[in-house]
Amino acid sequence: MTHLFPSDPTQRQIAGELYELAKDLPLISPHGHVDPALLADDTPFPDPARLFVVPDHYVTRMLASQGIPQSRLGVPSVDGSEVETDGRAIWRLLAANWKLFRGTPSRLWTEKVFSEVFGVDSTLSEVTADAIYDEISGKLNQPEFRPRALFTRFNIEVLATTESPLDELTSHAKLAADGWGSRVITTFRPDDLVDPEWAGWQNRVAALGELTGTDVGTYSGFLAALRSRRERFIAAGATSSDHGHPTAATLVLDDGEAAVLYRKALGGGADARDAEAFRAHMLVEFARMSLDDGLVMQLHPGSVRNHSLSLHHRHGRDVGGDIPSATEYVRGLRPLLDAYGDDPRLRIVLYTLDETTFTRELAPLAGVYPALYLGAPWWFLDSPEGLRRFREAVTETAGFYNTAGFADDTRAFCSIPARHDVARRVDAGFLARLVAEGRLPLDEAAETIADLAYHLPKRVFRLDRPA
Amino acid sequence: MTHLFPSDPTQRQIAGELYELAKDLPLISPHGHVDPALLADDTPFPDPARLFVVPDHYVTRMLASQGIPQSRLGVPSVDGSEVETDGRAIWRLLAANWKLFRGTPSRLWTEKVFSEVFGVDSTLSEVTADAIYDEISGKLNQPEFRPRALFTRFNIEVLATTESPLDELTSHAKLAADGWGSRVITTFRPDDLVDPEWAGWQNRVAALGELTGTDVGTYSGFLAALRSRRERFIAAGATSSDHGHPTAATLVLDDGEAAVLYRKALGGGADARDAEAFRAHMLVEFARMSLDDGLVMQLHPGSVRNHSLSLHHRHGRDVGGDIPSATEYVRGLRPLLDAYGDDPRLRIVLYTLDETTFTRELAPLAGVYPALYLGAPWWFLDSPEGLRRFREAVTETAGFYNTAGFADDTRAFCSIPARHDVARRVDAGFLARLVAEGRLPLDEAAETIADLAYHLPKRVFRLDRPA
Amino acid sequence: MTHLFPSDPTQRQIAGELYELAKDLPLISPHGHVDPALLADDTPFPDPARLFVVPDHYVTRMLASQGIPQSRLGVPSVDGSEVETDGRAIWRLLAANWKLFRGTPSRLWTEKVFSEVFGVDSTLSEVTADAIYDEISGKLNQPEFRPRALFTRFNIEVLATTESPLDELTSHAKLAADGWGSRVITTFRPDDLVDPEWAGWQNRVAALGELTGTDVGTYSGFLAALRSRRERFIAAGATSSDHGHPTAATLVLDDGEAAVLYRKALGGGADARDAEAFRAHMLVEFARMSLDDGLVMQLHPGSVRNHSLSLHHRHGRDVGGDIPSATEYVRGLRPLLDAYGDDPRLRIVLYTLDETTFTRELAPLAGVYPALYLGAPWWFLDSPEGLRRFREAVTETAGFYNTAGFADDTRAFCSIPARHDVARRVDAGFLARLVAEGRLPLDEAAETIADLAYHLPKRVFRLDRPA
Repeated sequence: MTHLFPSDPTQRQIAGELYELAKDLPLISPHGHVDPALLADDTPFPDPARLFVVPDHYVTRMLASQGIPQSRLGVPSVDGSEVETDGRAIWRLLAANWKLFRGTPSRLWTEKVFSEVFGVDSTLSEVTADAIYDEISGKLNQPEFRPRALFTRFNIEVLATTESPLDELTSHAKLAADGWGSRVITTFRPDDLVDPEWAGWQNRVAALGELTGTDVGTYSGFLAALRSRRERFIAAGATSSDHGHPTAATLVLDDGEAAVLYRKALGGGADARDAEAFRAHMLVEFARMSLDDGLVMQLHPGSVRNHSLSLHHRHGRDVGGDIPSATEYVRGLRPLLDAYGDDPRLRIVLYTLDETTFTRELAPLAGVYPALYLGAPWWFLDSPEGLRRFREAVTETAGFYNTAGFADDTRAFCSIPARHDVARRVDAGFLARLVAEGRLPLDEAAETIADLAYHLPKRVFRLDRPA
Repeated sequence: MTHLFPSDPTQRQIAGELYELAKDLPLISPHGHVDPALLADDTPFPDPARLFVVPDHYVTRMLASQGIPQSRLGVPSVDGSEVETDGRAIWRLLAANWKLFRGTPSRLWTEKVFSEVFGVDSTLSEVTADAIYDEISGKLNQPEFRPRALFTRFNIEVLATTESPLDELTSHAKLAADGWGSRVITTFRPDDLVDPEWAGWQNRVAALGELTGTDVGTYSGFLAALRSRRERFIAAGATSSDHGHPTAATLVLDDGEAAVLYRKALGGGADARDAEAFRAHMLVEFARMSLDDGLVMQLHPGSVRNHSLSLHHRHGRDVGGDIPSATEYVRGLRPLLDAYGDDPRLRIVLYTLDETTFTRELAPLAGVYPALYLGAPWWFLDSPEGLRRFREAVTETAGFYNTAGFADDTRAFCSIPARHDVARRVDAGFLARLVAEGRLPLDEAAETIADLAYHLPKRVFRLDRPA
Repeated sequence: MTHLFPSDPTQRQIAGELYELAKDLPLISPHGHVDPALLADDTPFPDPARLFVVPDHYVTRMLASQGIPQSRLGVPSVDGSEVETDGRAIWRLLAANWKLFRGTPSRLWTEKVFSEVFGVDSTLSEVTADAIYDEISGKLNQPEFRPRALFTRFNIEVLATTESPLDELTSHAKLAADGWGSRVITTFRPDDLVDPEWAGWQNRVAALGELTGTDVGTYSGFLAALRSRRERFIAAGATSSDHGHPTAATLVLDDGEAAVLYRKALGGGADARDAEAFRAHMLVEFARMSLDDGLVMQLHPGSVRNHSLSLHHRHGRDVGGDIPSATEYVRGLRPLLDAYGDDPRLRIVLYTLDETTFTRELAPLAGVYPALYLGAPWWFLDSPEGLRRFREAVTETAGFYNTAGFADDTRAFCSIPARHDVARRVDAGFLARLVAEGRLPLDEAAETIADLAYHLPKRVFRLDRPA
């Protein structure tokens, strides 16, 4: 009950009172990576290893860091090399190395899922590995542990998944047909169409042309095709777009310059600098589209993707080899903000992997531009210490109301309630300190905890608008 | 009474004891932006909106960040656009949006002023807005709420304002004539004369020539004119100069090189690189002047000024659109420190908006160079969390005695005691933790809190010298 | 007893329990700068000033920062200028300025040594200076205060010193002859042979050729000579190499390119860029050598050496004038990690002076690459706040088991137990918070504290292998 609250008795008491006001509020998950087919098809989860280990790069990278290769953990290979397929063998590896996760959020989330979803309260170890595996396996076949049942039990109000503009959204169509259309929505993520450095870009642009019946040989056709997909995504519930760029650079080109750059890239002649300029300019184009269609832009720059070459060659993208790097927002965002930063139609949620920007750049920017909101601590920072430092760093300059609420950002469906619960507890602890130190009256802290947990994300991500 | 102290009972008890030793010490305000005419003329404050909202860019930018434009808040326009003039209307906007300030220092300071200066203890809200407005308005006309009476009541020993070398210091002359010359002093801030990129620079240099009767067509004349103004400022009580540069770069040019650069800039031919070189070199020139005349140099680099173009076009400078950026001190200051870093006549107080430099650059530099002191956490960092992090970050390397004490840095005269009180409370809390953890004996903490609150700033800013 | 523990009663109680499990474990000191002659010759320490002040640049730089030049503190000069030689006079300067060290680790360590080694419990001051000086002086001549006796009393299991490849390791030979060979070991530190920008580099390379009887006129000869010295160091107990580069840049050149660069440097024609390329490439060469001979690589980049020119001219290197600067690891280490980052034979311990890299770069890198471990907070960060922030920053991403345990990194032999004790107490406090907040069970925290204090450094530095 007092889990994650400060141990100081005054703060703990207040944190408990505040948490009570937030814990049962429905979950708003406006940014995540759950596969929509999971909920569209509602098929049972295969086994504990494929639920907790294989798809979770937080887990596999930690084991890899101590010498257990991803192939032994069942991570699919892209180079044809052999991978472990026996779920129980994978599970035993996790159990035997469980101490690596001491002090990490992965451990917190996993144990919460064990306990609150599967009723498992023993600690994972080599001794308990098989029993826990069997217990969870047994439950996975029961109807109340199928995805849609869990969705309801988890009290999720809305879950956004993330798709490329090339995605045909068939899972979302099935969900809509089943009456789940407003509960599971999509997000428009065009990175693979605006990054000429991403292998296969020209082919994907061509596919965009085919999918939309548009001539993408011209820049204006390319923009028209993207607009057309945005319409389609909005029809599938999307209220936001998502942009994962290497940097936060933005650039305003005129139509002629942009067209030249686009043709150069299509022809394969774009160098690194051209590619960066194109991506930077496309953020401005997407901002313009947002002025018209209202999609909230999410921008999360600063990850050096596929840092480990050998990992990338063996297992492909998104398997734990992405590393943050120093990120600059103040000069990077300036062209976009000069153009549209005080347009009330524009809304941008900024994320970071570089904590140093919290007080220095992000809070001051969000604290003056109407368009800007600060996204939740992301990826390596969505942990008790990371969440706490975020509030301590940004609140004094940006307040609470220029932040966007928690985003679980996860592929791991079953961990969603655990992640939100951690965030609610940490926010309760932070607010409790403000109250205990005479910095905020209790009644205002009470209103604030509910805003952070529920009302703010719903409003910032425009999930409160009639469909 | 326990406001802002840690809630741990051991620490809270000690913090209270330490705070008692500091709370009634006179205020030393060596760095700030109060208009000296306020105290020279001693006219009553106009109304609560013009006291608490209009001139305070911390307040107006936060409201702007949620879509309330500065024009509705009475911020004067420079482009002729209309602005709200009804103080009560502005006040009601503040009240209706008071929750935006939860967790911010603006709220702390404002409520302390309400309570301790105006005896208002109700919380601002749409319901209480008019009553509070009327209560404060009524008091503003009473003699004991005029600026000089408040100055005395606030127990301010010395207040430094900040002026351009072009300022004729008439307000300070009036203050001196009234016997207030040693209580309200000026600070020499030559930024507008050393930054060729600041529009109108040549005109201001010409004005400097006229004011001093010097031929500023030559570089040596320019230096002579600056020296002459420093003398005049020192006669008006100045003990320090203040330098707000984009970066911390310093550069030693010989007289010939500097003269070439100066002429190029005067002729309008200086590019961004030349301008940076000129500013960097001028810091070295000012250091040389300080060797002779003893002015303490304050250097606060790292702000990207006027980031929001639309704000700048509508409302001009210093209205909330400045954003910090990453700042480098180690290589930047090296030329100046190589030349004069261990000259006992030189004293430089370094400020930062980039917290990452606290442990990495600033504490190590101040912990070896006799000339260097660390200025108080500044601007976005002069808050309970910012002040705490500063002590936690710098003390272990620089100790307490290479820091310069609190600087309120404010335009908001009535908030001065509240700001100093927050700093004293946070320092008491930090020292209490050291005592509670056995890291410092109580008697030494007691001596330290008084040094931080009073003796250190007085000594570091050379305010303890006979006039 | 509760020294440095959190003052919250719950946490304090748990911290005490955990600390009990660590406090008597033997000390593993895998990275430090004690002069091996001290233990080889086992001569008494000369006097308190030469024990506590003269060789400790933490102490001398702080006094210098307040205007007491190093020459008055007995720091040897390299330019022939006079320095104080009277130990008592130096001691009195320390005593008179003792308050400068309030809140610093130097004070904590010194007082622990006073109390636990010399039985001195009075606080240093002008009043007590002479009495403490006499008391310590008197003990330094007693047999139980000679270095080897203290080594045993300190419960040091193994102490690594650090030597240039040019060192003939005569002290280590004497230690081996006396049966101390496995207790005091060396570390291979080749910086002075791989940095063409370090004055005298060509002469040192020539000396390497002579020492090894190798033709270092060719690049392959140079590599062979280095390999030969590594063998000799390994025979003298070395289990690691140590690399203090300006940056973390690595570079893979082919043999031809490297040979060209080497010849250019030998000929004196290498510019700053060539020198950086050579150092960067040599890190890769050392990694290759480690694959064969098993030396653990320690990399600590990011110090701007000899920042204070006047200090450097008067007193030479390593006297307090080195200042950290921003350090980049993600792109810098990539070439090396692409080549060998998942080779199980390679082990690299990374240190930093730039805390901003803890969450952003170092923890994510160590949390995925098998070769990488995070070294203890180093230099300006090996303090209660620095150690705490390290755990808070890295644990959630890298866990405890990708960290390497405490490294005292000191020249000050008598302070070794005090430094380890501080680290054990801070780790106990951090773990106690995890337990108190329900983030780690007590029994696992108990196992972890012993791992951090003893088992991890022993294993990571390969000190658990049979000699």
